[in-house]
Amino acid sequence: MSELPVYRATIDAQWIDYNGHLRDAYYGLVASYAVDEVMDHLGIDAAYRERTHCTLYTLELHLHYLHEVKRSDDLEITTRILDFDRKRMHVGCRFGCSRVVGPVATAEMMLLHVHQGEKPASAPFPDDVMLKLEALQKYSASLEPFGPGSRKIELQRR
Amino acid sequence: MSELPVYRATIDAQWIDYNGHLRDAYYGLVASYAVDEVMDHLGIDAAYRERTHCTLYTLELHLHYLHEVKRSDDLEITTRILDFDRKRMHVGCRFGCSRVVGPVATAEMMLLHVHQGEKPASAPFPDDVMLKLEALQKYSASLEPFGPGSRKIELQRR
Repeated sequence: MSELPVYRATIDAQWIDYNGHLRDAYYGLVASYAVDEVMDHLGIDAAYRERTHCTLYTLELHLHYLHEVKRSDDLEITTRILDFDRKRMHVGCRFGCSRVVGPVATAEMMLLHVHQGEKPASAPFPDDVMLKLEALQKYSASLEPFGPGSRKIELQRR
Repeated sequence: MSELPVYRATIDAQWIDYNGHLRDAYYGLVASYAVDEVMDHLGIDAAYRERTHCTLYTLELHLHYLHEVKRSDDLEITTRILDFDRKRMHVGCRFGCSRVVGPVATAEMMLLHVHQGEKPASAPFPDDVMLKLEALQKYSASLEPFGPGSRKIELQRR
């Protein structure tokens, strides 16, 4: 329980754009599916959502595109818990592809635990989820540094 | 030529997730389609890509999710040129929805002008595109400030 499962994506033909490579937004979709698996792993799965009316909402997403990904490529997403508090988790995704050395993309997400009632409201994680997050963050911190990480997008003039 | 066209998105039923709202990644897809229209407006369209083998690649994407968007909602994306240099443009997208006051999401993107040869390589914008970018940035700067803007994703402890 100290490691998160690897998510393997199959690239759909419709995800390829006029540039002949994976359209930018579909990296986000793959990351979104990878986070669904993280939720299952944490126990924030369909049964939990049904029982508690609690789920995760994405607050922010930041993607770095490092290499083109083609229709014929495989994609393997490894996920880390970079940080968390009582209601939020900060997740990092590394996109690997067997054709390329190093990541082809990285993503960071901030996710909020939400109770979906009349009006959605933030809610603390249950204790067992907190314990899992703690173990996963400890494991993540033992790995090589994550990056490129989120930053302010801007043109830096040289 | 000082204003960019508004992009109106139709929300596909398949874009709704188990939380009953637009899945995070599809905001990115809508922004990606909005940028396609910006490219057309700048003259970086299908004919240009065919003629010059030049196109735009996304380097970074950062999204802020501010409100839930439902299946029945409309979405209207307005785009600005926040900044540019000889090869890169920094774009901001504001997601509006008639049900909600204020933006339901914002996105920023850094895009690179690329020549697609044997190996893709960055290339300067043609002069007429530079002139259009200049006029569009000037117009964008005259509008109310854009935000929330890109920043480092992190948990700030209170």
